[in-house]
Amino acid sequence: MTEFGFIEQIRRLFASLPDQGFEGIGDDCAVLPLAGDEALVFTSDLLTEGVHFLRHATTARELGGKSLAVNLSDIAAMGVSPVATLLSIALPQDATQQWALEFMEGYRQVAERYATPLIGGDTTRSEAGITINVTAIGRGPVSHLKRRRDARPGDRIFVTGELGGSGAGLREILAGHLDTPLAALHRNPVPQVDEGRWLGARHEVHAMMDLSDGLASDLRHILDLSHTGAEIDLESIPVAAGADLQTAACGGEDYKLLLTAEASAAERLAAEFRIRFGTPLYPIGRITAQEGLVWLRAGQPEALDWRGFSHY
Amino acid sequence: MTEFGFIEQIRRLFASLPDQGFEGIGDDCAVLPLAGDEALVFTSDLLTEGVHFLRHATTARELGGKSLAVNLSDIAAMGVSPVATLLSIALPQDATQQWALEFMEGYRQVAERYATPLIGGDTTRSEAGITINVTAIGRGPVSHLKRRRDARPGDRIFVTGELGGSGAGLREILAGHLDTPLAALHRNPVPQVDEGRWLGARHEVHAMMDLSDGLASDLRHILDLSHTGAEIDLESIPVAAGADLQTAACGGEDYKLLLTAEASAAERLAAEFRIRFGTPLYPIGRITAQEGLVWLRAGQPEALDWRGFSHY
Repeated sequence: MTEFGFIEQIRRLFASLPDQGFEGIGDDCAVLPLAGDEALVFTSDLLTEGVHFLRHATTARELGGKSLAVNLSDIAAMGVSPVATLLSIALPQDATQQWALEFMEGYRQVAERYATPLIGGDTTRSEAGITINVTAIGRGPVSHLKRRRDARPGDRIFVTGELGGSGAGLREILAGHLDTPLAALHRNPVPQVDEGRWLGARHEVHAMMDLSDGLASDLRHILDLSHTGAEIDLESIPVAAGADLQTAACGGEDYKLLLTAEASAAERLAAEFRIRFGTPLYPIGRITAQEGLVWLRAGQPEALDWRGFSHY
Repeated sequence: MTEFGFIEQIRRLFASLPDQGFEGIGDDCAVLPLAGDEALVFTSDLLTEGVHFLRHATTARELGGKSLAVNLSDIAAMGVSPVATLLSIALPQDATQQWALEFMEGYRQVAERYATPLIGGDTTRSEAGITINVTAIGRGPVSHLKRRRDARPGDRIFVTGELGGSGAGLREILAGHLDTPLAALHRNPVPQVDEGRWLGARHEVHAMMDLSDGLASDLRHILDLSHTGAEIDLESIPVAAGADLQTAACGGEDYKLLLTAEASAAERLAAEFRIRFGTPLYPIGRITAQEGLVWLRAGQPEALDWRGFSHY
């Protein structure tokens, strides 16, 4: 059973429960509208040793920072600001007290950068392997929320940074090269918190999500939920130095944002983004009414069986 | 390092971060006051195989129910109602698809009983052992919130049910007797959601928490945070059939509520509780101005080095 197959079964099993005012499973975060134009959003990510990280290939401090960063990325993808997190961590006997404290220092460093307090969680013993769960809470105007289902035919598709660096870094780590710049990039993702909040405030941005499983996989969620298709110009995908095009399209854990925006406002949006952040908003294609994901090379469809990165 | 030692270090490390409107670490839940007399509360619990459960000694369905129940108990202990949960689960290759679905059915059964939707989470692979994290969200009037720090000298101390049954059941499970009534009780805790909400609405209830680590351990948190002491009448502790007094005082995972209430209103409170729920509110002692926990037998102090149950 794939992760998505299991999630779909869970969704059906719980569909008849009262919603208590929440919008649930399906987006980067669950949403709870509050009074006025305000909402809270919620997300959880679980990291397990040997699957999401190799203890010998990361410092405790890096892992602490990454555990938080990947959750803040989900909040950013909704277009609002992170406001708090809960951290649960299970530690085996062979994880020392020093390791645990360095992990917390790494977590704190990212928490401080984004002014996000740690409000709760759990610490416990593990029989085997380190397991980490972070729940992040975000807050912002309801009118700023960006959902995967809101892409519209004609929208331009953008990504907020170069892709493939993390995937290439993971390949280097697995080959035993831990000290390269890309390996460090893989271990130290930077969540686009400020970019997400800024894009949230722009009404011309329709759908948004973060790139955690790779463009080829993540974009399909937007297309499925929006009942649209897309054309992606292979030449336009911004490939990180040291990565190749396929890794940029299929590698995971870049934690850049993927968004669609009204075509008529897209140029101005990209120009203002560059003024605000000093980096481009990369246009990579268009949303189409015709369903399906089409890769174009020099404007011609190319049959590529590219899928994203899957842990499960 | 004990769990509490580590939590204290974490608390210090994060103390200087902005609170973003949250009341953080220290109670059963973190609190976020909203507009008007309303608040949300948040809690997370992590369960790891071999530490919190033995796979051969529980059904998947029971474990799913218990994973949710222990979190709902934390919400109840704050005096408000659960409104949603996020579930993260890591499954090793040797946990079958059937196991995973039965786990979810058990989780759903408890979620349905308390009208609590599942709004998000994560599913992933594990290299070794099942790990489960649940984050629960509660909602209710700020004026109903019960905190550990609010016990006052002279308060009566109550528990909402018999104690020790779960601890005695765990002992039977560890001895290989899985099919006894107490073993079943240990695997199927019932969170006191309705009782917690009802007690939350009573102004004469001052401090409240749930009994997860055992009275001898949990009561000390109320005493420490309230800067008070307590006298407990050993004869008054309601011992579950099949358990002994020490297990009732020190065994974990009973998930009854422990509360303190204004002495002058205590008898009426207990009478009305019995009318509402058909079960007693058991008086077990008094909060004292003199710090320290004193066990009394026939009114005389008895030196007992009783501590609660600790996983870590």
